[in-house]
Amino acid sequence: MDSEQLREYGHRMVDFIADYYKTIESFPVLSQVQPGYLHNLLPDTAPDHPETVEQVLDDVKTKILPGVTHWQSPNFFAYYPSNSSVAGFLGEMLSAGLGIVGFSWVTSPAATELEMIVLDWLAKLLNLPEQFLSKGNGGGVIQGSASEAVLVVMIAARDKVLRSIGKNALGKLVVYSSDQTHSALQKACQIAGIHQENCRVLEADSSTNYALRPELLQEAVSRDLEAGLIPFFLCGNVGTTSSTAVDPLAALGKIAKRNEMWFHVDAAYAGSACICPEYRQYIDGVETADSFNMNAHKWFLTNFDCSLLWVKDQYALTEALSANPEFLKNKASQANLVFDYKDWQIPLGRRFRSLKIWMVLRLYGAETLKNYIRNHIKLAKVFEQLVSQDPDFEVITPRIFALVCFRMVPVDNDEKKCNGRNLELLEAVNSSGKLFISHTALSGRIVLRCAIGAPLTEEKHVKETWKVIQEKASYLLRK
Amino acid sequence: MDSEQLREYGHRMVDFIADYYKTIESFPVLSQVQPGYLHNLLPDTAPDHPETVEQVLDDVKTKILPGVTHWQSPNFFAYYPSNSSVAGFLGEMLSAGLGIVGFSWVTSPAATELEMIVLDWLAKLLNLPEQFLSKGNGGGVIQGSASEAVLVVMIAARDKVLRSIGKNALGKLVVYSSDQTHSALQKACQIAGIHQENCRVLEADSSTNYALRPELLQEAVSRDLEAGLIPFFLCGNVGTTSSTAVDPLAALGKIAKRNEMWFHVDAAYAGSACICPEYRQYIDGVETADSFNMNAHKWFLTNFDCSLLWVKDQYALTEALSANPEFLKNKASQANLVFDYKDWQIPLGRRFRSLKIWMVLRLYGAETLKNYIRNHIKLAKVFEQLVSQDPDFEVITPRIFALVCFRMVPVDNDEKKCNGRNLELLEAVNSSGKLFISHTALSGRIVLRCAIGAPLTEEKHVKETWKVIQEKASYLLRK
Repeated sequence: MDSEQLREYGHRMVDFIADYYKTIESFPVLSQVQPGYLHNLLPDTAPDHPETVEQVLDDVKTKILPGVTHWQSPNFFAYYPSNSSVAGFLGEMLSAGLGIVGFSWVTSPAATELEMIVLDWLAKLLNLPEQFLSKGNGGGVIQGSASEAVLVVMIAARDKVLRSIGKNALGKLVVYSSDQTHSALQKACQIAGIHQENCRVLEADSSTNYALRPELLQEAVSRDLEAGLIPFFLCGNVGTTSSTAVDPLAALGKIAKRNEMWFHVDAAYAGSACICPEYRQYIDGVETADSFNMNAHKWFLTNFDCSLLWVKDQYALTEALSANPEFLKNKASQANLVFDYKDWQIPLGRRFRSLKIWMVLRLYGAETLKNYIRNHIKLAKVFEQLVSQDPDFEVITPRIFALVCFRMVPVDNDEKKCNGRNLELLEAVNSSGKLFISHTALSGRIVLRCAIGAPLTEEKHVKETWKVIQEKASYLLRK
Repeated sequence: MDSEQLREYGHRMVDFIADYYKTIESFPVLSQVQPGYLHNLLPDTAPDHPETVEQVLDDVKTKILPGVTHWQSPNFFAYYPSNSSVAGFLGEMLSAGLGIVGFSWVTSPAATELEMIVLDWLAKLLNLPEQFLSKGNGGGVIQGSASEAVLVVMIAARDKVLRSIGKNALGKLVVYSSDQTHSALQKACQIAGIHQENCRVLEADSSTNYALRPELLQEAVSRDLEAGLIPFFLCGNVGTTSSTAVDPLAALGKIAKRNEMWFHVDAAYAGSACICPEYRQYIDGVETADSFNMNAHKWFLTNFDCSLLWVKDQYALTEALSANPEFLKNKASQANLVFDYKDWQIPLGRRFRSLKIWMVLRLYGAETLKNYIRNHIKLAKVFEQLVSQDPDFEVITPRIFALVCFRMVPVDNDEKKCNGRNLELLEAVNSSGKLFISHTALSGRIVLRCAIGAPLTEEKHVKETWKVIQEKASYLLRK
């Protein structure tokens, strides 16, 4: 770690990355390589002796970049966006540069304290209830992903219940969510040992725009109670992965409270939009939740990974996740003067991730971020309108944020053929390299998803994307 | 994300970080701030409007850096090192620059394939058995931390057993390890729902240099089998956190195999040393293990986080951790042509972490890395000798790698007073700001730990550190 070598090579890497962004539109958005391609390009063993930065950067260009799917391309509309930004990038650099491991407060007080402060800032921007702020029993924490967020709160909720009714009751615990909930919930259940037959995946359909119906939840809970089971965890959604469905939080929260269930709200994607006053309504009812999650790395200009989790009861987390061996003991922790975030998460070690979200907030400011969100929603409206003007296509669910769910309409009411054709269209547009969209299924129908949210996307990209989709579609229809 | 702004600000940040390393010895190694210090220095809410890079970097200097504990300082000897390097830093930059999320192969084939290749390279450097390579049923994967590594293999092992004997048998599953095992194991048990009374924490003492005795394990297993319990998981250590103890892998593995237990080897710290032929002996017996873990982010010049996990049976992992919703389906995955690392880990999303370890291996080469390790061990020998020459001190366990466990000797055989005095010494040297060491307890005795492994540490730092410790000790003795 020579500071002058770091300076020299670091500058070279900055230029490499800046040049990458300058030319990012020249790459196929979805990588077009075949499985195993890299195996043939790299040696079988590590080199014994040093190679030069030039050699490595050459290999990045010629061997790595062809295998990259360009998430930061303005023509990336798949899944949900994963926002990078100059501020986020600077934060990543600084975090890597300082190279600290902030598991306990003492291992870098600034890492813990900046995280508390920035999560409080965000909670205020989202107008979350006071109980989520760090000054009382609540607080926010940065997790790596929404999967980890839902897992840690499920473990906290599980252990809270089992502490009072005995650990042998694990097989009686029941989890509730709509069938639109992210697979992260299913995975959390698997890891936490919740029995699969006790995971209630409640059907949501187009009649509610794929939101969970409170009556359905209430019925399921009542049935389980009668059967002697123990409802303990409810996951509500604000902006589902398939179609940005928004569950009615207040009504769901009431049922959760009445039945002493932990109520987790997954707003991984759409949470970002809720800093805008006009979208805040979508998390109305969050005051009934026990935990709330939003991914700053999706649509908030903060480089992956940065998933923000707030809880009202930090002790539920720390009681479930603490381990305090002698080699980690220190005065500040033992005097309970500080947060030790190691007890709020799965791993022990943690990076200085608050730097990047702090830099995003400071270098852009809240107003700019609001307008950033609004611009993507405006572009999504443009795309939605283009789709709805074409008789060969239909918009499948009313657009709420910046995702448009659409498909080619069925011919002769043949839904099966229609599904196949939409998958063909997906394949055709993505293998063109000009754009990348993804798909989902809603009530058995294959649906195409155009999620607008890459930082570089402008109206021209949206219009050009639609043109490519139309061209490929008419080719398919002519076939 | 403007490429020219990224260039300009990126260069500025490179200089900031290079300057930081140039002056790193001028900071107190352990941050000397008081709990809550930052709260008074930052505003209560995020700014509405953009601030300048200068303002932010000024704040980093004046408000953040005082709260940083300088893990990269040459005088950092606490816990275990967390290596940063120019190559690791470049890898982090490139990963942040590309901004991909590599959960499935298709989301960036290069990310998955480079990870497979580099983990194979490392497996060969460590001379791991063939079954850990990616070409058969095994393979390597990058986890965030050793905690996640042990958790995922425990979940895999748990579910493998429960699939055959029924999930209601969870309360019968037993985990074994020595009492020197990292607290990550205890945490994994908590998360996986293993009953606390079924966690066998077997005593290890100075008679075996704190290694687990196979007879003790065999006795415990036999007792549990007689009681109708089900031994299912054994964690062995190569280089414990307290004192770098090395368990006898071959003998432990034999017992594990005979009883159909999953045998995990935690070589988080010492694994790196085993690329040197003269230290490879410490993982002899790894051929009996089901999984093996080493943290490249500890002592292998790869910036945190980068924890390497190899398994012989990838399907045990993927059966326990897979979730395949429609919105993630794609041709390559469905045809089983590729690894989808999302099914080898807790979270869904993942960064392009293989870039940094690839850059470390290429820019330094295996021979340089071996000599890097050897140099730290040589410095540890210097420190060990200095300690053993001072009659007021003693080396507590024979040094194996680059950690020296030592303490001030008891006066008048008063062990209690001796513990107190060593904690006082710890406090005195760390609050001097000149160095940072940490402590542990071995058989009830407080022990000081000097872990040599920061990339910038030279012999002069080790000697100066010893001088400070001696000075503070003689002050305490005079008191």
